[in-house]
Amino acid sequence: MNVNAPYVKPFQNDAVPLQEWLSHGKSWIESALGEALPAADQRPRILHEAMRYACLGGGKRLRGILAMTICQTLGAEARRALRPALALEAFHAYTLIHDDLPCMDDDDIRRGKPATHIQFGEANALLAGDALLTLACQWLAETHAPLPHPPAALVTELTTAGGSQGVIGGQVEDLAAETLPPDEEMLVYIHTEKTARLIACACRMGAISAGACASKVDLLGRYGLHLGLAFQMIDDLLDATADTRALGKPAGSDAKNQKLTTVRLWGLEKSRAEAERHTRMALDLLEQLECPAGRLQDLTRHLLMRDF
Amino acid sequence: MNVNAPYVKPFQNDAVPLQEWLSHGKSWIESALGEALPAADQRPRILHEAMRYACLGGGKRLRGILAMTICQTLGAEARRALRPALALEAFHAYTLIHDDLPCMDDDDIRRGKPATHIQFGEANALLAGDALLTLACQWLAETHAPLPHPPAALVTELTTAGGSQGVIGGQVEDLAAETLPPDEEMLVYIHTEKTARLIACACRMGAISAGACASKVDLLGRYGLHLGLAFQMIDDLLDATADTRALGKPAGSDAKNQKLTTVRLWGLEKSRAEAERHTRMALDLLEQLECPAGRLQDLTRHLLMRDF
Repeated sequence: MNVNAPYVKPFQNDAVPLQEWLSHGKSWIESALGEALPAADQRPRILHEAMRYACLGGGKRLRGILAMTICQTLGAEARRALRPALALEAFHAYTLIHDDLPCMDDDDIRRGKPATHIQFGEANALLAGDALLTLACQWLAETHAPLPHPPAALVTELTTAGGSQGVIGGQVEDLAAETLPPDEEMLVYIHTEKTARLIACACRMGAISAGACASKVDLLGRYGLHLGLAFQMIDDLLDATADTRALGKPAGSDAKNQKLTTVRLWGLEKSRAEAERHTRMALDLLEQLECPAGRLQDLTRHLLMRDF
Repeated sequence: MNVNAPYVKPFQNDAVPLQEWLSHGKSWIESALGEALPAADQRPRILHEAMRYACLGGGKRLRGILAMTICQTLGAEARRALRPALALEAFHAYTLIHDDLPCMDDDDIRRGKPATHIQFGEANALLAGDALLTLACQWLAETHAPLPHPPAALVTELTTAGGSQGVIGGQVEDLAAETLPPDEEMLVYIHTEKTARLIACACRMGAISAGACASKVDLLGRYGLHLGLAFQMIDDLLDATADTRALGKPAGSDAKNQKLTTVRLWGLEKSRAEAERHTRMALDLLEQLECPAGRLQDLTRHLLMRDF
């Protein structure tokens, strides 16, 4: 990894404006992912091309940036959370590939370009997803967590959050909810497991990478859950109100797929209010952090205002 | 785990006949898997039912038994490799679910019953596979390897063997080979990556669980590669010659799917001779182990003679 790359230092500088912070963080993660993923000319080429296609050249890198920002907020160097950040982004890319498959949400566009199965065929897309999940765990196994955490703590974090009682459980109920009447308990379950769990996991992994104590890791996990719920509510609002080009994925696809969303359950106004409520709860938790967290506060408020 | 269960002691007794050894090992793994997998009444139920359906009630448990037998051969208690054995079996079940999907090999029967996607639908089958892969990594992260290995060595083993340059790479080329002329180099690549790598991984994990030195781990990994190649060649022979009921999966499906197999490339006689050659090479490696390995030798010869 080139620690002198032009985006590394600005990302580590707490004084730069948030937009620059985000854009440098995104470049750093993008570049490190490009180096860490298997090269496209390695056998089997089509698989490695599909993995790189799905991982690179798009995405906000929110999960990776959160892990690195939290690590730095807690006084450790941001690059200590770089490897976890790459694993989070590879994991996130795997979930998007599988979610877009015809037997799941059947979406053809992702991050402004054809979905992986449109570009490489269903079998290669499915296997590229499998390979990214496997690679994420491999990267984390090579990254020993600092004390007081057990060495394999980062693998445990990702596999717990990403398993049958986390992200995958959320996706199962998300599909099941398409044929059921709207239900608030189910909506909260889906948003918590499918979206907020991985964002909370990113926050926990950032704290673990900084060597934070268990109570700080838990505090930041709770922060991440509220942030993730607010994030998903804004996502639902954008899907209902923005256009496809701005989103990079088909607008209105939730309604087309009869997805159970905040907008469908609560309408626009209450959805907005709920997103604001969870943002406030996330900010309240940051107050308890007992260290300057201005950058995290800015990031939290920014996500409520985003239009992409 | 109930270490007084009726199958535990016979499995640890080097004097019992091989068939008893295998059947007790199978019962031990089956029972421990049943305990370790999420209960079917935990949310989301359909996902946990699908995971249990795909993992339990069938299979030879060859990979798990190999890991435990090697651990015991090297002088450690077999149960030290139990957790890795469960992870190997969960991982293997995930590959079978995904391989059977319509966009892959499109097979409807597995282990003598309807494939997971026939029983639970494509989306739930795909997600059950994802969840089993995730769970396998989670179990291994909780199982610290003994010295001289790094604590997360078992996760590294499984994710390296199971990744894009291992099992998944083999599956990609296996699908690609269906539309290409038969080619020996490609056949060896597919058999090595798709089948032998995971069997070699099981052997390495058994050795690591016993705290063996790196050179013994490598020796047993090479043993596992030859054993795995012989195993796959016998599989190809059985697919071409046995009937569906004996196999527990559709006989002749290789020919139907235009699979690149040893039988298609070499015919029955040379395939048999190659399986015998790899079995001999596996046995030669066991000679170098410098400890009594009668049980492993019996197991190695048995796999050449199997008719299921």
